[in-house]
Amino acid sequence: MRTATKVLIIAPAILLGWVALSQTAKAPQLGPEYTSDGQLRLSTNYREWVYLSSGFDMSYNPAMQMDHHMFDNVFVNPEAWRVFVASGAWPDKTMFVLEVRGAESRGSINQKGNFQGAAVMGLEVHVKDQAHFGGKWAFFGFPGRDVTAKMIPLSENCYSCHSDHGAVDTTFVQFYPTLMPIAKEKGTLEAAYQKEAANR
Amino acid sequence: MRTATKVLIIAPAILLGWVALSQTAKAPQLGPEYTSDGQLRLSTNYREWVYLSSGFDMSYNPAMQMDHHMFDNVFVNPEAWRVFVASGAWPDKTMFVLEVRGAESRGSINQKGNFQGAAVMGLEVHVKDQAHFGGKWAFFGFPGRDVTAKMIPLSENCYSCHSDHGAVDTTFVQFYPTLMPIAKEKGTLEAAYQKEAANR
Repeated sequence: MRTATKVLIIAPAILLGWVALSQTAKAPQLGPEYTSDGQLRLSTNYREWVYLSSGFDMSYNPAMQMDHHMFDNVFVNPEAWRVFVASGAWPDKTMFVLEVRGAESRGSINQKGNFQGAAVMGLEVHVKDQAHFGGKWAFFGFPGRDVTAKMIPLSENCYSCHSDHGAVDTTFVQFYPTLMPIAKEKGTLEAAYQKEAANR
Repeated sequence: MRTATKVLIIAPAILLGWVALSQTAKAPQLGPEYTSDGQLRLSTNYREWVYLSSGFDMSYNPAMQMDHHMFDNVFVNPEAWRVFVASGAWPDKTMFVLEVRGAESRGSINQKGNFQGAAVMGLEVHVKDQAHFGGKWAFFGFPGRDVTAKMIPLSENCYSCHSDHGAVDTTFVQFYPTLMPIAKEKGTLEAAYQKEAANR
């Protein structure tokens, strides 16, 4: 999820209020839903999902320069999380949401460091779906206030990066501190990841 | 919650694995539970609660110097969160957990910025409980691997700071980006907070 951020965020957009309004919706969806033309519908209740972790100004590019600080928050649907806790593996219908927020500094009593701002600057979804992608994973980016999105083409480098470096099943479990011990215990770390980690 | 961090963390402690192990526990508690001598029992399933936000190196002290970076993550019990979304106010039995984690830098594909480490460096709980504190709030700190804690005395400055500066009912809703719009819409911001914000 993380590495896709730099590729997919074309124009930051203010989504203030949008998530809050959607939080009271009834009958939240339990798995990925699609439009008749195959676009993924955004799970607007994702802030009720299980939180995995946050990063601050993360980048795989050491030359990356930004004129502002950013947080990214990652959530996973609770059904998938429960399976991972029990098995160390992601089931069919797993969905991640990566939410990018601008970092604010001084405000209220805060004098140092950063807190998260109201503006959602980017939103991406990573879905595992047997019925739609043959059990493989697909990425979707939701710019602006979009609530449906076409699948990002397989030629984009988010796919190859996740495949080459994800600790478990193309996902960056190495950045999710409560899940990494489970993957180690259950023996589900990818061989390529273990080799990469051993060579550092 | 945030300001209490600097007061309460006496000795960082590694809690690796402890949360993960507890995540599979059955019948999670729905409200605060206490020992026979009045200590609060830690809700070890708090990583399944609703995530509110994270900070990075936050401090109310501009002279604060640390030799490392820190994240703090805040969670609230889902029952209280649902009431807040509907009303902008916290019900009885609201519980917050503030989790402090060390920040790591280079690792795997990450070349810049920070991600959260496995070590939980501090854990604090803020509880609103009519039956125990007359409907007021109490703070509890859980150092090391403790799963019960005595109430922090009312003389500690976490109470006065939260009371003086919390945007809603002694809580720092001003740092929770999905809740602040709700408090504004519902008209539940404290007068003292609004005055302070207007004078900035």
